[in-house]
Amino acid sequence: MPHIDNITFVTGNANKLREVQAILSPAGINIRSESLDLPELQGTLTQVSSEKARTAANLLKCPVLTEDTSLCFTAMNGLPGPYIKWFMQGLGHEGLNRMLVGFDDKSADAVCTFAYCEPGKEPVVFEGRTRGKIVPARGPTTFGWDAVFQPAGFEETYAEMDKDIKNTISHRYLSLQKVLDFLKA
Amino acid sequence: MPHIDNITFVTGNANKLREVQAILSPAGINIRSESLDLPELQGTLTQVSSEKARTAANLLKCPVLTEDTSLCFTAMNGLPGPYIKWFMQGLGHEGLNRMLVGFDDKSADAVCTFAYCEPGKEPVVFEGRTRGKIVPARGPTTFGWDAVFQPAGFEETYAEMDKDIKNTISHRYLSLQKVLDFLKA
Repeated sequence: MPHIDNITFVTGNANKLREVQAILSPAGINIRSESLDLPELQGTLTQVSSEKARTAANLLKCPVLTEDTSLCFTAMNGLPGPYIKWFMQGLGHEGLNRMLVGFDDKSADAVCTFAYCEPGKEPVVFEGRTRGKIVPARGPTTFGWDAVFQPAGFEETYAEMDKDIKNTISHRYLSLQKVLDFLKA
Repeated sequence: MPHIDNITFVTGNANKLREVQAILSPAGINIRSESLDLPELQGTLTQVSSEKARTAANLLKCPVLTEDTSLCFTAMNGLPGPYIKWFMQGLGHEGLNRMLVGFDDKSADAVCTFAYCEPGKEPVVFEGRTRGKIVPARGPTTFGWDAVFQPAGFEETYAEMDKDIKNTISHRYLSLQKVLDFLKA
């Protein structure tokens, strides 16, 4: 419970900043952003996020929030997981589906990990997880792997969903709610 | 051309140390080893290796050699590449084959990257690459993914091959030859 009212969110993405502000500002937490090119480690989701937040807090010398996204295929024991960025870049939407052709289980978790860290302290990690499955791309293909992820209980992919609905079930939203609970506790 | 005769090879593996010594010692280069648990970055093969060697040289304050192994599936645009360790751990030999069921091209490169670095200097990276293909596991399954990699021009997998033959065509051998050429130049 850090009684903190100024936090730097490490992102170069104005949309992400707005989304974080929309949830945290009403609780009296002032969020500004800074774009930093931080090294990303290999490891578990928690390790990758923790080390990024620790590095950012030590560099910026202030409380920081970082965010990571993973896509974890059940049949592949949680992989590509934190490496999904490279697989999306290298294989595209069709390739992500092809990777699963040899597996019966097409289910996957979309995972968002926010990490909060103050300089010299241990990072705290908040994980939001949305169950779903990998499907052939449907909807706009402009935003990462949204077009191939269909959340459980819905007929649309993330890319096809109404944004207001997506924002109440998404892995990012679930993770951010945990951040909010922590910061206002 | 670093006229260096003492190098620390960062490994906890006595077999790897012996292999490196067998090739570099006759050239008058004295190799000792040190086991270090170094962070591994995400990125290209060259980035991953360079940063590991740079970190090790700065920590140990002496010239170092580090080694990384990748397995690059052609159909997957070089992936899993530097992340093969996680895929081998998470999926096993059968899973690596299953990942390729949806792709016609089963070819792959086994890649070994040695990096040499002196404290405060830029790392030099040496890549050895052996072409081959991914096959259902044959031979002893004790050494990483050797049982599913069949080098081009051979009927045996790495795991089935006579060690003396494997050692003259392997990605490690090819990379280490480049290290030798560099160090004795």
